[in-house]
Amino acid sequence: MRNIKITIEYEGTNYCGWQIQPNKPTVQEELIKAINKITGENVNLIGAGRTDSGVHATGQVANFRTISNIPGRKFASAITSQLPYDIAVKQSEEVPLDFHARFDAKGKRYKYIIVNQSIRSPLLRNFAYYIPYKLDLDLMNKGKDYLLGSHDFGTFMSSGSSIKDTVRTINFVSINEHDNLIIFKIEGNGFLYNMVRIIVGTLVDIGRERIYVNNLPNIIESKDRTNAGHTAPAQGLYLEKVFY
Amino acid sequence: MRNIKITIEYEGTNYCGWQIQPNKPTVQEELIKAINKITGENVNLIGAGRTDSGVHATGQVANFRTISNIPGRKFASAITSQLPYDIAVKQSEEVPLDFHARFDAKGKRYKYIIVNQSIRSPLLRNFAYYIPYKLDLDLMNKGKDYLLGSHDFGTFMSSGSSIKDTVRTINFVSINEHDNLIIFKIEGNGFLYNMVRIIVGTLVDIGRERIYVNNLPNIIESKDRTNAGHTAPAQGLYLEKVFY
Repeated sequence: MRNIKITIEYEGTNYCGWQIQPNKPTVQEELIKAINKITGENVNLIGAGRTDSGVHATGQVANFRTISNIPGRKFASAITSQLPYDIAVKQSEEVPLDFHARFDAKGKRYKYIIVNQSIRSPLLRNFAYYIPYKLDLDLMNKGKDYLLGSHDFGTFMSSGSSIKDTVRTINFVSINEHDNLIIFKIEGNGFLYNMVRIIVGTLVDIGRERIYVNNLPNIIESKDRTNAGHTAPAQGLYLEKVFY
Repeated sequence: MRNIKITIEYEGTNYCGWQIQPNKPTVQEELIKAINKITGENVNLIGAGRTDSGVHATGQVANFRTISNIPGRKFASAITSQLPYDIAVKQSEEVPLDFHARFDAKGKRYKYIIVNQSIRSPLLRNFAYYIPYKLDLDLMNKGKDYLLGSHDFGTFMSSGSSIKDTVRTINFVSINEHDNLIIFKIEGNGFLYNMVRIIVGTLVDIGRERIYVNNLPNIIESKDRTNAGHTAPAQGLYLEKVFY
């Protein structure tokens, strides 16, 4: 028995997210089918984390056990050859049998793209959050600093999650402008359900002066979802990297 | 009677190019239909130039005459509200009655994107030319310099064009690498049918050492399409700007 780690890129537009579900297209199911085509096995594919419908990944990670004798580095092109056009395995390698893509993940980095211009962008319609109104980047940058460090991020979790321990550590947040794009990078040891999208939505509401930036510490402390901003839409979000 | 100039962004993936044709989806037809919805008129929409099926634009320009009294700058959002998701009018303005988007164009700038990595990119599948083999950027940069200036570019024109005068001037070519992307910018006073895509394909063949870079002046002079490289695919090409 061998353990294979794969790094995956996908466009989430046409999938109901990562996690396999009956009668719905999912990224996980497509990967399991592709691995079956090349190994003949029905593998248990363990993803580093779920992504929602419409969310993209350039560095999702997963692992599976196999008795196939395909060299570790060859799985990437072999699996990709059996995948639909909107999913690809970028890298593959054999790892120790006890490697677990979810439990061993030490952190993740997400990217979020806003296209900030008066008219919507056809080329970015599935790849960015279109915002036609003016945003105050200075306020947003001030806001992001309050998020750094370890906090109970219960405020920034969509209802429906059964998670009890909502303390997470954010190590890094950056907000950069390139022409009409505003690009967020957020790195942390773990993220609650919709946490990145609620953080971005809250920073947007701060940039629009609908939330007063100096209130952010109180909003975090309240652990009340209704005090945070809106949930930014899925299509601007990218899972960029999983750290091990 | 008034004359309105519009600047258009579109994703070319789902269209048979710019130019209106019977029973085929085209960008020009969608714009004419949208303008009809807001003005009630069937306008003669003059584009700065055609783009092929799959080619994108971030700065296509067109003009049309109208008796509508909508303020010039308001056409952009009004027309965009009637367009499909993959086309938008970014800007609009009233111009003198004799302005003609095609005849008055003094030049154009195109962008071409290559994604140069071993595995295909799902996110860029409709937006870049995927090349898995190594390219020598130094050779390509040497090659591009031979293209600058005024030449008979008959070598770089797809057959089927009836154009007689094939002399054009290229003012600027740049090739830049950003991570796995290679981005071309090409600016000139006019371009023959498929000229940008054949230039990029030829530079790729030079970078792959299938065409010897020092032969490029002879290839240009030959005016024989078979001496140039392959035609790079449509999905990497963007009409960025039309100069007036």
